[in-house]
Amino acid sequence: CASDSDDQTETPDVVVVTVGTEDTHGLQRFERSARINGVHVEVLGKGTAWRGGDMKRPGGGHKVNLLRDWIDQAYDSLDSDTLVIFTDSYDVVLLGGADELRERFLALRHRIIFAAEPFCWPDAGLAARYPPPDTSTPSPYLNSGGFIGRLEDLRRLIRAADIDDNADDQLHYTRLYLDPKVRADLDIVLDHNATIFQTLNGALSDVKLHSSEDGWAWLENIVSGTRPLILHGNGPAKLELNALSNYLPRVRTPDRCHICEELKTPLKDEPRVLLAVFIEQPTPFLDEFLQSILDIDYPKDKLELLVRNNVEYHETTVDAWFSRVSGKYASGKRLRPADQLPEHTARMIVLERATAGASSYVFSVDSVARVTPNTLRSLLESGVDVVAPFLARPGEAWSNFWGALSPDGYYVRAHDYMDIVNGKLRGLWSVPFINNCYLLKVDLFRQPRLKEVTFKVEGRDPDMVFCESLRERGVFMYVNNEEAYGHLINPEWFDPRHTNPDIYEIIHNRQEWEDRYISPEYWQSLEKTYEPSMPCPDVYWFPVVTPRFCKEWIEVMEAYGKWSDGSNKDTRLEGGYEAVPTRDIHMKQVGLETQWLRFLKDYIRPLQEKTFLGYYHDPPVSLMNFVVRYRPDEQPSLRPHHDSSTYTINLALNTVGEDYTGGGCRFIRYNCSVQDTKRGWILMHPGRLTHYHEGLKVISGTRYIMISFIDP
Amino acid sequence: CASDSDDQTETPDVVVVTVGTEDTHGLQRFERSARINGVHVEVLGKGTAWRGGDMKRPGGGHKVNLLRDWIDQAYDSLDSDTLVIFTDSYDVVLLGGADELRERFLALRHRIIFAAEPFCWPDAGLAARYPPPDTSTPSPYLNSGGFIGRLEDLRRLIRAADIDDNADDQLHYTRLYLDPKVRADLDIVLDHNATIFQTLNGALSDVKLHSSEDGWAWLENIVSGTRPLILHGNGPAKLELNALSNYLPRVRTPDRCHICEELKTPLKDEPRVLLAVFIEQPTPFLDEFLQSILDIDYPKDKLELLVRNNVEYHETTVDAWFSRVSGKYASGKRLRPADQLPEHTARMIVLERATAGASSYVFSVDSVARVTPNTLRSLLESGVDVVAPFLARPGEAWSNFWGALSPDGYYVRAHDYMDIVNGKLRGLWSVPFINNCYLLKVDLFRQPRLKEVTFKVEGRDPDMVFCESLRERGVFMYVNNEEAYGHLINPEWFDPRHTNPDIYEIIHNRQEWEDRYISPEYWQSLEKTYEPSMPCPDVYWFPVVTPRFCKEWIEVMEAYGKWSDGSNKDTRLEGGYEAVPTRDIHMKQVGLETQWLRFLKDYIRPLQEKTFLGYYHDPPVSLMNFVVRYRPDEQPSLRPHHDSSTYTINLALNTVGEDYTGGGCRFIRYNCSVQDTKRGWILMHPGRLTHYHEGLKVISGTRYIMISFIDP
Ligand SMILES: O=C(O)CCC(=O)C(=O)O
Ligand SMILES: O=C(O)CCC(=O)C(=O)O
Ligand SMILES: [Fe+2]
Ligand SMILES: [Fe+2]
Ligand SMILES: [Mn+2]
Ligand SMILES: [Mn+2]
Ligand SMILES: [Mn+2]
Ligand SMILES: [Mn+2]
Repeated sequence: CASDSDDQTETPDVVVVTVGTEDTHGLQRFERSARINGVHVEVLGKGTAWRGGDMKRPGGGHKVNLLRDWIDQAYDSLDSDTLVIFTDSYDVVLLGGADELRERFLALRHRIIFAAEPFCWPDAGLAARYPPPDTSTPSPYLNSGGFIGRLEDLRRLIRAADIDDNADDQLHYTRLYLDPKVRADLDIVLDHNATIFQTLNGALSDVKLHSSEDGWAWLENIVSGTRPLILHGNGPAKLELNALSNYLPRVRTPDRCHICEELKTPLKDEPRVLLAVFIEQPTPFLDEFLQSILDIDYPKDKLELLVRNNVEYHETTVDAWFSRVSGKYASGKRLRPADQLPEHTARMIVLERATAGASSYVFSVDSVARVTPNTLRSLLESGVDVVAPFLARPGEAWSNFWGALSPDGYYVRAHDYMDIVNGKLRGLWSVPFINNCYLLKVDLFRQPRLKEVTFKVEGRDPDMVFCESLRERGVFMYVNNEEAYGHLINPEWFDPRHTNPDIYEIIHNRQEWEDRYISPEYWQSLEKTYEPSMPCPDVYWFPVVTPRFCKEWIEVMEAYGKWSDGSNKDTRLEGGYEAVPTRDIHMKQVGLETQWLRFLKDYIRPLQEKTFLGYYHDPPVSLMNFVVRYRPDEQPSLRPHHDSSTYTINLALNTVGEDYTGGGCRFIRYNCSVQDTKRGWILMHPGRLTHYHEGLKVISGTRYIMISFIDP
Repeated sequence: CASDSDDQTETPDVVVVTVGTEDTHGLQRFERSARINGVHVEVLGKGTAWRGGDMKRPGGGHKVNLLRDWIDQAYDSLDSDTLVIFTDSYDVVLLGGADELRERFLALRHRIIFAAEPFCWPDAGLAARYPPPDTSTPSPYLNSGGFIGRLEDLRRLIRAADIDDNADDQLHYTRLYLDPKVRADLDIVLDHNATIFQTLNGALSDVKLHSSEDGWAWLENIVSGTRPLILHGNGPAKLELNALSNYLPRVRTPDRCHICEELKTPLKDEPRVLLAVFIEQPTPFLDEFLQSILDIDYPKDKLELLVRNNVEYHETTVDAWFSRVSGKYASGKRLRPADQLPEHTARMIVLERATAGASSYVFSVDSVARVTPNTLRSLLESGVDVVAPFLARPGEAWSNFWGALSPDGYYVRAHDYMDIVNGKLRGLWSVPFINNCYLLKVDLFRQPRLKEVTFKVEGRDPDMVFCESLRERGVFMYVNNEEAYGHLINPEWFDPRHTNPDIYEIIHNRQEWEDRYISPEYWQSLEKTYEPSMPCPDVYWFPVVTPRFCKEWIEVMEAYGKWSDGSNKDTRLEGGYEAVPTRDIHMKQVGLETQWLRFLKDYIRPLQEKTFLGYYHDPPVSLMNFVVRYRPDEQPSLRPHHDSSTYTINLALNTVGEDYTGGGCRFIRYNCSVQDTKRGWILMHPGRLTHYHEGLKVISGTRYIMISFIDP
């Protein structure tokens, strides 16, 4: 019943009222913020069709009318001095509870308090009619996204004038406020100091995120020194609200992602997933990529495989792989280079197959993404509809998400971007852009408002178009870095014109390179207590590269084929003269010089430093890096000599007894030979003074070794 | 009796007639040449006072008159058709025998034949009155130093006109020849083609010395293709005659010095010798010089010692030495710096003491000469009056004689100079200049014509003045290189301002340096089969320098005294920074850098090449050469490090256990230390990679080492 009394209670009930015709991610976030703060929320219009226009333009009268209807009802059931707070919902979060709201309201000692903002919108002409504010303020104008007053006062406010559903609510309330009689009657003021309401548009530099002692974040308005209770990402400030709502309210503490725990829903049964694989560009280490797809820890009969390859160079590989594995999956479909589909079409085909099909999720993986087997499961359990596993190029800032956007929609580094990339902050992050690998909940895309989601704007990147399309529809995208889900490889330098182009990738895709080419035994040699084998005095023997390395390396040389003629004249050298010539190919000739120097720095130098104590030379310098070919009918041996090196490495590329007989390296001063060389193992020996040596005669077959004269 | 017959015999007797009023070296040479060729010589005027003027100016009528007297006598005792050859003697040698002379004479088919020469002398105006010669000839004019004819014809010639003793003989005969009647009557011709007579003045390029198959030399006149039989060093060509008479006639074959054997006279008893020692300039290795004087293999009671020292710097040494040894000699006399005598005076004092005294010889030795003990004896036996042992700066062309003179009396390289210096030709050589060490027969200087021999012409070198003075008096000087008599040291770079200046002399006086400073044990290390000691792997140990080296080297450093402060800042280095600093003095600071580099090249490099097979780097490069001083209270040790070298040498300069305790060098990778280092021995070890090492702590005393980082 309505109260007649003037003595309003000092502890009125508090009701938060909002409008949410659709159950968007924004509304869910708002409701959570209310729940977290123990505030009761009335969501008006749920299930009703929205008639208030879209949020970019003036509109929203529908909100006013929904509120009027609620007040009419509430006035019967609630105390008339109940404190009612009206706010938007999709772009608002609550930062405080009922007690705080009441307290602040009472302390302000006015009957109706509206949020304030820096812009006089939508009718800038009205600015002149504002009364001069008490203090100079950065937010002189009324914002209608939040106001507070007792039920009876709001009732009078709402009855003071009518509004069409599609008229603008802010214009409506502004006019009322600017009517001196209404303003005085109802004692309406604006919350210039953000005592309760913080609007973000135009006010980003007024606010600062703090961490309190208990680890929760809180927001200060640093202009007025207040701690606002209701945060409104009005107008274009929605992305900033998204960013702040990665922390507020009570989303995470520095070492714990509370929201992750709230959202996490363990898989009961395994939903069907459309596994979409995209190969859009020549990609190093595609073998390993395809294997990583196969390694996804999920029942293959719950996976519908769709492989889109748009790279002719990879087609043979992809074809072989698909033929081999597709049968294991619930279904298999391919889009081949020959189909000549643009990327956006291919991606749309996937989305359409999903919404039309039986899968509950799409797991989309580009060939540059390298995910761990557990990734899919983790994402499925994460409880959000659109989520990417965090992936980055190892050691680089480049990742598969953006933390912020420039006004024209490109990457901008967010304040917490590097902390997320480095894993200093972990969890689930609402971000404006993700790509390369993500999970989509298919149901989301069945909603009418997402029907027109697209990948296609001519001349723009399909991923950027897609994400923008989602942002416009109020879809929240997340990146998850709770766990390590893998990384991105770097396809930029990959050149398929090379023979075995992956072997050129040591610099830009070190991890893949290492996994494929560095011998698993290599790592033992770096252990503190490991005693390397020493077949001759101060000649050390280490396993370094894999058989595959050796095979591919030889193939590169033989494909190039221009072996030197073994004469002393050598135009590849500075002096044009080689005193003890081999038949060889220099790394410079096959474009592998820089790569090989990186190999020396990253894999050989650590061995050297362990072996030859106290010698440091980083990076190692080596001007002479070459593969030698010994053959009985060509050059079978090499006469005694020193190398122009501080130390030399001599890598056996093939196998004595299998590929050739004879051969080896003899250290003359020690009368000691290494003949049982092992493929993939290096000999490391001093070059200049003590280790006078010769290449022993190859009797049959062909012997290949890779030599570097290090620190000449 | 005189013959009346016209049919002259076809094999007349041959008589050579010459004038030799004094028994000069030239006359002796002439007589030998006659003897060698089996020719009978009549020497006229022996013992008679010469009245013919001196030989530089016109004169010589006395010769004509002596010949006239002889002919008058001979006409009674010899056949009138006896073939008479008249020649000069002091500047003539015979190159052929009686048969050849007769044959050539008969073949020429004229009655009187005069030598010819290029100059119309002494009256050039007479040239116009010469009959045109048969052929164009470089020697159109009469020379009176040689003519040939039958006794009766020469009698007619000599009677055709009178001449005063002091008138000019050549003018006299020229006038007769130019008188057409006399010329026709006596059938006088000139030997334009040098069929018999070769005059040398102005004709040096007409002759060439050849070696015949039996090894003897012979002279060709290359203009006319003849082989002259009588060689006349007329006028200023005396020096060239001296040079040719080192070969002609039958003086030597390429491998045997016949003249040496002819002259050699074994010592029967040991004549008394005035041993004159001259120290005219600061001289390196004077200790060794004084010892070499003492070492002369000769009874000291037959030696009168005269020591002239003109160098204040050496006086202490000389004084001590003289006091110690002079008593052993027959007599001892000194000329000291305090006497302030110029060199020429000192040298003249010696000569005067000799001629006035009881010694038969003067043996003069300058401090730059280093003679073997046998030198004096060999020279005494050599059979010539003025003779120098051949001495040269090792490896240089600089020696103690000159083979030829420029017109102004300075050194010119003779055609055989280098062969003599190199010992390709050996024996006794008549030369125009000797110095530094020579033997003089005192009797020679008692002869009247040598009374005015002198060392003094103001502003000229006393040695040059002396030799010129001898040449003018017809004294032949010899250099003897039959045996090795020693060498010259090079005083030019010696700088007594240094501490121990001799140790700076490795470059310019290598042999002395080596004898004093290189350990006798060093040489064993170079032997093929020598196995060097290896106290740690690839660390080699060699004895290299003597204790005296070590002592002097330390003295040089301590006298300099500016030890570095042991901090990382080191302005002596290019980068200004030393990572592992020692307290040290660099060789550059004490002016020993170049010397040390030579030491490395000459003594260390050969060890390295034997030790580290196949490594060649000549010369070794070393930028860091320094003496380190370790002391408990200063810098006692050196932390683990590598050297910036291909190999390092570490030379112990003093003795562990005596001079200090502790110290030594530890090679960390091999866990191997060398603590019992030996003074004068080096450690040689690889610098950069394998031989991480440290300098162990000196517990007491001072340890000095010399370090070089070779081939950085
Ligand atoms: O044949 C070998 O193992 C030695 C090769 C070698 O010493 C070189 O290439 O410098
Ligand atoms: O004390 C020693 O023997 C070592 C000296 C040394 O290693 C150096 O000076 O580099
Ligand atoms: Fe080699
Ligand atoms: Fe060292
Ligand atoms: Mn809003
Ligand atoms: Mn893309
Ligand atoms: Mn003469
Ligand atoms: Mn002199």
